[in-house]
Amino acid sequence: MIGVFDSGVGGLTVVREIKKQLPDVSIIYFGDTARLPYGNKSRETIQKYSSEIVDFLLSKGCETIVVACNTASALAADYLREKFPDLKIYDVVSSGAEAAAETTKANRVGVIGTTATISSSVYKKKITELKPGIEVFSQACPLVVPLVEENWINRPETKKIARAYLRGLKLQKVDALLLGCTHYPLLEKVIAGVMGKRTKVIASGKKLAEKLAGDLGSARNSSSSEAGRDEYFVSDLTPHFEKLASRILGKRVEIEKIEI
Amino acid sequence: MIGVFDSGVGGLTVVREIKKQLPDVSIIYFGDTARLPYGNKSRETIQKYSSEIVDFLLSKGCETIVVACNTASALAADYLREKFPDLKIYDVVSSGAEAAAETTKANRVGVIGTTATISSSVYKKKITELKPGIEVFSQACPLVVPLVEENWINRPETKKIARAYLRGLKLQKVDALLLGCTHYPLLEKVIAGVMGKRTKVIASGKKLAEKLAGDLGSARNSSSSEAGRDEYFVSDLTPHFEKLASRILGKRVEIEKIEI
Repeated sequence: MIGVFDSGVGGLTVVREIKKQLPDVSIIYFGDTARLPYGNKSRETIQKYSSEIVDFLLSKGCETIVVACNTASALAADYLREKFPDLKIYDVVSSGAEAAAETTKANRVGVIGTTATISSSVYKKKITELKPGIEVFSQACPLVVPLVEENWINRPETKKIARAYLRGLKLQKVDALLLGCTHYPLLEKVIAGVMGKRTKVIASGKKLAEKLAGDLGSARNSSSSEAGRDEYFVSDLTPHFEKLASRILGKRVEIEKIEI
Repeated sequence: MIGVFDSGVGGLTVVREIKKQLPDVSIIYFGDTARLPYGNKSRETIQKYSSEIVDFLLSKGCETIVVACNTASALAADYLREKFPDLKIYDVVSSGAEAAAETTKANRVGVIGTTATISSSVYKKKITELKPGIEVFSQACPLVVPLVEENWINRPETKKIARAYLRGLKLQKVDALLLGCTHYPLLEKVIAGVMGKRTKVIASGKKLAEKLAGDLGSARNSSSSEAGRDEYFVSDLTPHFEKLASRILGKRVEIEKIEI
């Protein structure tokens, strides 16, 4: 049983990748929609919220936790590992950093994300720890999440905003661009289009799912008949969230609102 | 002592108007920054949050409450009046509706706001109650708050987005456009520019401050020497919030973070 959480709906892009790699695992998803977005909140608050959510996922029987929110990964993943030493905790930031370090040939990586993620410099730190020669260029893109939520995927306004945000990274000739926010894969085509062919665009959810599949591989094979029942919980439920969730998962799912 | 609350920093545009009309009143401001935005949350959640905030403002000695958040005004103001019958409660929606009904000559009013405010149809109801002949045209503009928060006030991207949102209202030839969100006055010039000279742009905070000044006028005159000490509280404090607050108020203020 894998517990996946995010501040909202974005983490479902990570669920999608996990289900591609591990169709027979059961996932408990929690989206903290009553308190989103995390991107503009303080470290202390993010740690408190994340800890409450892990308690909930534990109560549902999860033994593996995926922090599918970049802000929570950046500000609370290490805190959670200390607080819950018996849990196996994966986070999108570590996976994304690994993918970026493996992908770049020119040793020039771009990272985009929310203001909180970028200000924390966590990607820069993790990537240069993995491979000290890499230069990391970062850009906060606070308008991208609202654009995705508004479903302005193929609008000229969105392309214009993407161009404005990515201009500096293009000038720096990065050959790998890490999407440091789980909403961003929904704009991957637009972003890749703006960056051009010489830049590989990386979504950390994919790398995380591969790692998870490697670690869980054997356990999965032995119990493949009984698994695959997923449950979705949120702290606040709106029609907007339900619509966005089906758009990401490619199917309608039942979502339950709970107090946390 | 007047208690003013909003989901975040936008309500400070209302504080600014109140201080213009009533420079000697004391204001306790609360911005629920840990749980913003309210615009995409359910009625039940907004009522719970608003009620907690009013309890806090009461504990600070407030006798008058200003709901300076359009979403909370739309979804929780009547609920608060029932729950706290002894309090004098003003809300930006009632004031904005009055201002719009008074302003339009053509009986064609446009309203813009967050998704939750517009979906609630509260402005349409209130305006047509005041003057049944008025036609109200509404448009949700969920990208405007993030644009203001990003301080993209004079950017071409912002003008392009404003044009996209306002196109339908221009075609409807509204002669009064109500800014149904307290963030929007910061983009008033851009919005007025897109709408053109024949449309009057209305910020509800101004009307609310005038009403408040009328009601409190006599009390104010008798105690004008001791007043004017304002306090600012938030549920989460970030440098971003402090910067935005000084930009709106035109001065640096001390902001205290509290648990609610």
